Amino acid sequence: MRFSFQRLAGFAAAVLAAVGVDPEHADITAHRLLEADLRGRSGHGLIRIPQYVPRIEAGGINLSPEIELRRETPVSALVDGDNGLGQVVMTRAVRTAMDKASASGLAWVGTVNSNHAGAAGVYTSMALEQDMIGIYLAVASANVMPPWGGSERLLGTNPISIAIPTREEAPFVLDIATTVTSHGTIKVLAQRGEQMPEGWVVDMEGEPIVDPHRADEGFLMPIGGYKGSGLNMAIGLLSGVLNGAAFGSEVIDHRAVPSQPANVGQSIFVMRPDLFRDLDEFKTDIDRHLAAMRAAGTRVHLPGQGAAHTREDLLANGIPVGDVLLGQLRELGDRLGVGDRLQDE
Amino acid sequence: MRFSFQRLAGFAAAVLAAVGVDPEHADITAHRLLEADLRGRSGHGLIRIPQYVPRIEAGGINLSPEIELRRETPVSALVDGDNGLGQVVMTRAVRTAMDKASASGLAWVGTVNSNHAGAAGVYTSMALEQDMIGIYLAVASANVMPPWGGSERLLGTNPISIAIPTREEAPFVLDIATTVTSHGTIKVLAQRGEQMPEGWVVDMEGEPIVDPHRADEGFLMPIGGYKGSGLNMAIGLLSGVLNGAAFGSEVIDHRAVPSQPANVGQSIFVMRPDLFRDLDEFKTDIDRHLAAMRAAGTRVHLPGQGAAHTREDLLANGIPVGDVLLGQLRELGDRLGVGDRLQDE
Repeated sequence: MRFSFQRLAGFAAAVLAAVGVDPEHADITAHRLLEADLRGRSGHGLIRIPQYVPRIEAGGINLSPEIELRRETPVSALVDGDNGLGQVVMTRAVRTAMDKASASGLAWVGTVNSNHAGAAGVYTSMALEQDMIGIYLAVASANVMPPWGGSERLLGTNPISIAIPTREEAPFVLDIATTVTSHGTIKVLAQRGEQMPEGWVVDMEGEPIVDPHRADEGFLMPIGGYKGSGLNMAIGLLSGVLNGAAFGSEVIDHRAVPSQPANVGQSIFVMRPDLFRDLDEFKTDIDRHLAAMRAAGTRVHLPGQGAAHTREDLLANGIPVGDVLLGQLRELGDRLGVGDRLQDE
Repeated sequence: MRFSFQRLAGFAAAVLAAVGVDPEHADITAHRLLEADLRGRSGHGLIRIPQYVPRIEAGGINLSPEIELRRETPVSALVDGDNGLGQVVMTRAVRTAMDKASASGLAWVGTVNSNHAGAAGVYTSMALEQDMIGIYLAVASANVMPPWGGSERLLGTNPISIAIPTREEAPFVLDIATTVTSHGTIKVLAQRGEQMPEGWVVDMEGEPIVDPHRADEGFLMPIGGYKGSGLNMAIGLLSGVLNGAAFGSEVIDHRAVPSQPANVGQSIFVMRPDLFRDLDEFKTDIDRHLAAMRAAGTRVHLPGQGAAHTREDLLANGIPVGDVLLGQLRELGDRLGVGDRLQDE
């Protein structure tokens, strides 16, 4: 069943407000979640509402955080999220980075005491609104694999996103976990009743696991073996340890330990292309190269192009919500007295 | 046969000076090449001298470039390399970024009209001298694969390096091509007479090629499929197109077209950790986490640790030079009148 962006965002905001989230924060969080759905990153979209609510009800999230800049220069800031919702903390971080980059050319902003913020590409895409480059790094909110060659789970799916403005082409938005897959994607498969391909998850003996419901018994695999493992670590050090946020054994599974603050760390870097070239020339040249890439075959994968098409489709035709999720959301809505928003259109 | 770092660096500098390179530039280039050997990146070390010389003799390199800052802010610069040797241009770029980061906290410096600069980790490691974080991106000097899903070679091995300072632990230095392997590594295998594992190179029909001498007939594979392909593109856009340097079809194979300027682009980002945390606390925490990673198994791969051990070993015991390369270097040395430096010790 499909629903409009506005209706789902309104429902998500109403659910969050009903469990005590500051109404402005509920609205920001709902929009960031639904923007993930619009980009086709449904593992980080509305599907998270039934996860966030128990965490909020268990006291694991500060519902009225005082988010403040702990350290600040004209080109950097450390945003203390005061254990607020990750979408709210990250939205503040990106806006801070964009303001600073507008004035100084570039800025790096880190977060500490943040929470799961959803799809990386949602935040780097915000920089595109002002024709800026965005780079996002984060410590994922659960450990899913050992460092390469090890056997103890100390690393998450630690994502990276890189967004680059274009003129006519769909913006370039890389948005990847540094594991072959992510738990968000696995969760979507599980809800659809589908199996995982071999190579996504291995058990302690290195044998493939294909049942998505058994994914937690094994390890996710990094992209490119030791290379992806190293990149994953670098992302964690630069978005976790650098900000004084959790990394390695300090990372808690925010789903498994709902009442405990997670101290998630993220980093966002924003830069104006005109530090190096005339902006119009730059965007024209990016367009030219992306068009050449697309012409290099009949099924070329260009980062961000699929998301742009999906966004256009879902804004026009509504966002599909699967039966399992819809059932969960309606139950939640009924319990909290906001269920009428998800009746059949 | 093994030779000391100083002796090989002296020989390489003498060869470069003998073909007309500015003596200071010859010295810088020789040191950057041998530092790659010390880090175990022999594909980007001394082995490049027999490639650089024909390119220099063909007029493909400006031997006395006027390297200048074309655009500059307190946190950024565009370094025009005037087609000088890549090691010289990149050394200038890193020093510029470090000076700016010392004053402003962080800086991003791009290069245009540069050339092949060798091992990425050599440049990010320079930032470690002042306890700064370094990130390096580059457009590789030959196209080796299509964008994911395509069939036209438009992308190189585009490397990324991330260096993070430590206290007692070996510095964290990620230094990876975003392809499963690189032509430098393949060249080393070819000289050793060894075969490539399956999964490194595929032919036009997707069948594996294992003979390193046939590598040019096929495509290299990106790490992590479409993910690595996208990361590779992002690196190219941010170090090539952003700087007005070559990308995509503009990239020439610097070995195949020795007389033509290559307009290579690189980017280096340098940042002081004390923007976010007390430096000592940060380094102590990085140490603690790296030690925990190492303890997570008996054969854990930590980026930079192998390079640090290799460096210690080779500085103490000399750098091994294989027979094929030694023969090439001696022949070159004899022809240029500097051969006596590589006689048996």
